[in-house]
Amino acid sequence: MTHVIDETIDRLLTRINAISLPGPGFTRPSYSPLETEAHGVVAEEAEALGLEVTRDAGMNLFARLPGRDRTAPALHIGSHVDTVPYGGAYDGTAGVAGAMALAAAFVRSGETPPTDIVVTVTRAEESVWFPVSYIGSRAALCRLKPEEMEAVRCDTGRTLADHMRDEGADPDAVLRGPGLAPAQFIELHIEQGPVLFDADEPFAIVKGVRGGLRYRNARIEGTWAHSGGAPRGARADAVFALADLVTGLDRVWGEVLAEGHDLAVTFGRVDAATDEHAFAKVPGLCDFCLDLRSDDVAVLERMDAELKAQIAAIEAARGVRFALGAQSRSTPSPLSATLGGRLAEAAAPLGHAPRRILSGGGHDAAAFAQAGWESVMVFLRNWDGSHNPKEGMDPADLGQAVRMIHAAFADRQARP
Amino acid sequence: MTHVIDETIDRLLTRINAISLPGPGFTRPSYSPLETEAHGVVAEEAEALGLEVTRDAGMNLFARLPGRDRTAPALHIGSHVDTVPYGGAYDGTAGVAGAMALAAAFVRSGETPPTDIVVTVTRAEESVWFPVSYIGSRAALCRLKPEEMEAVRCDTGRTLADHMRDEGADPDAVLRGPGLAPAQFIELHIEQGPVLFDADEPFAIVKGVRGGLRYRNARIEGTWAHSGGAPRGARADAVFALADLVTGLDRVWGEVLAEGHDLAVTFGRVDAATDEHAFAKVPGLCDFCLDLRSDDVAVLERMDAELKAQIAAIEAARGVRFALGAQSRSTPSPLSATLGGRLAEAAAPLGHAPRRILSGGGHDAAAFAQAGWESVMVFLRNWDGSHNPKEGMDPADLGQAVRMIHAAFADRQARP
Repeated sequence: MTHVIDETIDRLLTRINAISLPGPGFTRPSYSPLETEAHGVVAEEAEALGLEVTRDAGMNLFARLPGRDRTAPALHIGSHVDTVPYGGAYDGTAGVAGAMALAAAFVRSGETPPTDIVVTVTRAEESVWFPVSYIGSRAALCRLKPEEMEAVRCDTGRTLADHMRDEGADPDAVLRGPGLAPAQFIELHIEQGPVLFDADEPFAIVKGVRGGLRYRNARIEGTWAHSGGAPRGARADAVFALADLVTGLDRVWGEVLAEGHDLAVTFGRVDAATDEHAFAKVPGLCDFCLDLRSDDVAVLERMDAELKAQIAAIEAARGVRFALGAQSRSTPSPLSATLGGRLAEAAAPLGHAPRRILSGGGHDAAAFAQAGWESVMVFLRNWDGSHNPKEGMDPADLGQAVRMIHAAFADRQARP
Repeated sequence: MTHVIDETIDRLLTRINAISLPGPGFTRPSYSPLETEAHGVVAEEAEALGLEVTRDAGMNLFARLPGRDRTAPALHIGSHVDTVPYGGAYDGTAGVAGAMALAAAFVRSGETPPTDIVVTVTRAEESVWFPVSYIGSRAALCRLKPEEMEAVRCDTGRTLADHMRDEGADPDAVLRGPGLAPAQFIELHIEQGPVLFDADEPFAIVKGVRGGLRYRNARIEGTWAHSGGAPRGARADAVFALADLVTGLDRVWGEVLAEGHDLAVTFGRVDAATDEHAFAKVPGLCDFCLDLRSDDVAVLERMDAELKAQIAAIEAARGVRFALGAQSRSTPSPLSATLGGRLAEAAAPLGHAPRRILSGGGHDAAAFAQAGWESVMVFLRNWDGSHNPKEGMDPADLGQAVRMIHAAFADRQARP
């Protein structure tokens, strides 16, 4: 059993990551042929284990191992295989490999799990492609809204509905539902932060997922001018205006943390580098995106108000004009303390005392929690950041976490 | 004579601006076939007026109208016809049109100027293409350095020497010289600033040209991370680091002006928008350029020291690393008060009292001044900035300025 877990993890990571656009790193866009191909690898592996493979109207993949009680709510376990552009080898993929390793452990040992175990591979988790959160899991749960089907993919300009159809999904059927009935969901995922690495701990139980408030297509319009000709007072410099906003929000960020709240502020993309920009021109344009994250909706609301107040002041001071564009949101989601406790209980005999941690990034587990599922995540130690080619993780840590989950559910079998 | 000046201006502006890469605006790169074609228009017009057209080893163009004293230093008048990418209709081109209008006024009236008048069309004045200032005029003056011939054009990656040869110039002959002997130079040019427009004045006499200190290819290296995963204290965010620098230099800029010094600070291009950047990633990279201008070398040196001190502090605070890249400079240049006074004297009977003004941008007139010429500029009222497609100017203002220059030199004829 030791070997089947580690072998399955290694093989799935290798096979899925062989599917990518040219590097650096790994690129499998949401609802792309490459994502479909990666789903196909999981389907092939699952069928080889004798699991029953199905796909829903959103082309999410489910591979089912029957349990002793076929009527009880199933244990879904999985993650996604799409990536950000030039992403890493583990974000999403590690959770799918871990889920397959759990199923393989049950199959190879001949144990029957207490309930059905369903390896679950969602679609389109990385919202960098479409400005919509948790697309695949929300499709499975019948929680996508009709207007979200019209969101366009950033690289192609075509709609979610179109890309879904390309990959064999049926957007109308997704919207009609019904969605999956509440059950249990476990997602293994790299931490995407330095906490476990710095603490030298292989994994943690996630107590909640931060929500987000985003402006993905914001713009500052200033006035183009010659860099030597325009006096300081006569300028409307879009880059200076952006710098005012960044440093202004940075200051408030520090205050909010000092008050004991949770918050992250990121300007992930700043573009004052079009063909019109030049070193000898005062920039008349600066595009940017802003990503605010917190476990507390009130903090997000406060930052949004702060943002708008600062913008008004900067516009007045610098003669520029901000256009924030559309706002998108994801809701902060507490995860299941019951399910988390069950995992932690199983961890102790294995020599682990996993800490409880908050997730900064959004994950499918949040969508399941919001739909009333008993949903929890296990974070895996990682390094060199995430969403980049160097994203690091030790597959042995994933193996340890799978052993914990296996113990938590296999143990039940022995009970009366 | 009224008509020939205005007609010549209109025709030259129209003919030269018909030569451009696709818009918006006008694009004629330095030492490009389009710049050569624009020179050809001037040659054709000059020959039609009976002027003697020659070109030097750098393929600058000279169209000579003989004066009464053929041995006295000639009056050179002109500007350039290359543009920034997506530039305006007047930067450079107006000065060439005005120079041709002056020559046409003398020819059509049958007056002989006191000295030779040489319509002078330089090459490669817009240093956005090659990171070298005043290329054409410095070639004519034998002041280009051998290593500057190896500078590469930003769009092609090929050297100045190569592009020169493409357009018929001889880089070795340029470096050998000899350059032009000191004479007089007048350059008509749009202000590229709002001072004359705001004051409702058609033109001004320029008393000096600011120098510049530039970093065209600076970079901030931070650490890529997931926007939700990295705690504030663990981030090395390249965009926040840039914002610190922009607001920090902005503060010092205000102090320097308050002390009565001259300074302009511009970050003309900021690029945190590569394929690797995404809204959900803490940016690990931010490229930028910085342009500092002043009429005082000491102020430029002070700002350079300030820049380096701020960078050291930001690196320590944020864990990022700056790489400023190569520095380029142009020297502040006082212009000829004598020649400026002669023009102002001629302006009075025409009802003008041109103010004395400082040039923020660099111009060929500075290169002539640095080579010991009696060199001056006339600034023309303009609006909607410069170095952009909307750059505005009234050709009638240019006509007025040409009349002033004509009066300043034609008057001499009547004197004993």
